[in-house]
Amino acid sequence: METFFSFLEKRVADCSSLLCVGLDPHVTDLPRPTAEAALEFCLDLVRQTAAYAAAFKPNAAFFEQFGAEGWKALKQVIDAVQEQSQRLGSRIPVILDAKRGDIASTAEAYARSAFAGLGAHAITLSPYLGKDSIAPFLADPEKGVFLLCKTSNPGAADLQDLPVNATGEPLYVAVARLAQSWNSGNNIGLVVGATQPEAMARIREVAPELWFLAPGVGAQGGDLETALMSGLRRDGKGLLFPVSRGISQQDDPAGAAARLRDRIIDIQYQMTKSGH
Amino acid sequence: METFFSFLEKRVADCSSLLCVGLDPHVTDLPRPTAEAALEFCLDLVRQTAAYAAAFKPNAAFFEQFGAEGWKALKQVIDAVQEQSQRLGSRIPVILDAKRGDIASTAEAYARSAFAGLGAHAITLSPYLGKDSIAPFLADPEKGVFLLCKTSNPGAADLQDLPVNATGEPLYVAVARLAQSWNSGNNIGLVVGATQPEAMARIREVAPELWFLAPGVGAQGGDLETALMSGLRRDGKGLLFPVSRGISQQDDPAGAAARLRDRIIDIQYQMTKSGH
Repeated sequence: METFFSFLEKRVADCSSLLCVGLDPHVTDLPRPTAEAALEFCLDLVRQTAAYAAAFKPNAAFFEQFGAEGWKALKQVIDAVQEQSQRLGSRIPVILDAKRGDIASTAEAYARSAFAGLGAHAITLSPYLGKDSIAPFLADPEKGVFLLCKTSNPGAADLQDLPVNATGEPLYVAVARLAQSWNSGNNIGLVVGATQPEAMARIREVAPELWFLAPGVGAQGGDLETALMSGLRRDGKGLLFPVSRGISQQDDPAGAAARLRDRIIDIQYQMTKSGH
Repeated sequence: METFFSFLEKRVADCSSLLCVGLDPHVTDLPRPTAEAALEFCLDLVRQTAAYAAAFKPNAAFFEQFGAEGWKALKQVIDAVQEQSQRLGSRIPVILDAKRGDIASTAEAYARSAFAGLGAHAITLSPYLGKDSIAPFLADPEKGVFLLCKTSNPGAADLQDLPVNATGEPLYVAVARLAQSWNSGNNIGLVVGATQPEAMARIREVAPELWFLAPGVGAQGGDLETALMSGLRRDGKGLLFPVSRGISQQDDPAGAAARLRDRIIDIQYQMTKSGH
């Protein structure tokens, strides 16, 4: 049976890429602050980078800011990824970056919205409300979840670094343990900022099998090589690097995506050669 | 200067109510599963209960499930509350129950969406990403935030009850302390389930000034009297009880809201008499 992560791994193999292209139509990056401009921006980016994208990640906030029109644009962007999948003969997963998290009956409505409504294949969620708030998103193993674990922003330390339990391990390690124990359907991953390689290595220890969505490479200063050394699974997979402005704001987004894809391959090759 | 909570307190005084009417158009409660039916359901509820509502709380999930049309309905529902405010001559705050939480530049887009776009006055947020993820929502003191602290669902225990720091206090107490320390603009409150009065009393100790949004009365089995004894501030305010199906699914929603409002007043009167 296909699960979300077997689907993702098929795509990773097809395009030899661990790159996740972020679709974040910031108002300041658009020629006009309208839903139409956001749509055009994203459709162009999808067209240019699809061949190098292991996944696409639209962030709901940048569509919601345009109200109902923005929501319509979000659905059209996700549809456009499906069109590229058909053109390339290889299905590309769409991860809706929404960071939702609510009690069960409400979570069901969010799951319906993301999966049935918008057609996304996975979603980012907050772990703060616990397992029953995640369960409705896991019910279909072909749909996946990335749980916030250790994020790349400065405020992450406020809660995520608090020492918990008798061991005094940071909260984010406890979250990683929980996620690993909940992953009976092979459809839970974690959000682990690439900006903190030591934390990433620690999370990899307690969650050896999980995929990490690792933002922070490029714009936020995270180093690709260190992140790969800290977070890659033994099978050379398990890390997905979302990059948005690092691609969309380049003169040649397609070239920027291709170069990033190739740089990751190159580092992986060097790592294999040196016995990592 | 008006802050979100001085605005709320004015409304509480005007209607002698601590009731927050939840606007949750569950598909199963609608005659048809459409955005139009959701809109009609909410407009009727707003009209019937406005006189008794200290605030209204639409939950974003139940609108998002209808896509762009649902988003349009959500805006119309919030507009309808403003119309009732004018009719009654007393402004009624709208708390958007969205439980968002993202890094700063994304949080800015969510804040724009909730406040400038939809016209809400406050929003529920997850604390998991820390202070910088909350800051964009606090920038305007007239707009407010309710941070998830101790929720009313069974899975709440997974993270929120973990013992943290040297003291081993539960995570939710640490969150309450942080919120109290971040509340320089009088616009942070907490979400504290009415189903766990002991936790509520503990949170009241460390956050003596904050407003609590306390779901769980009615449908989820929380007891109104115990909650009032555990969570009320010394000034007899500080607790807001969101109720949705306990009102919307009654034969006479207006009557149900009025009775709930009056029951709260009655318990408060008894408490004052007995010296609480």
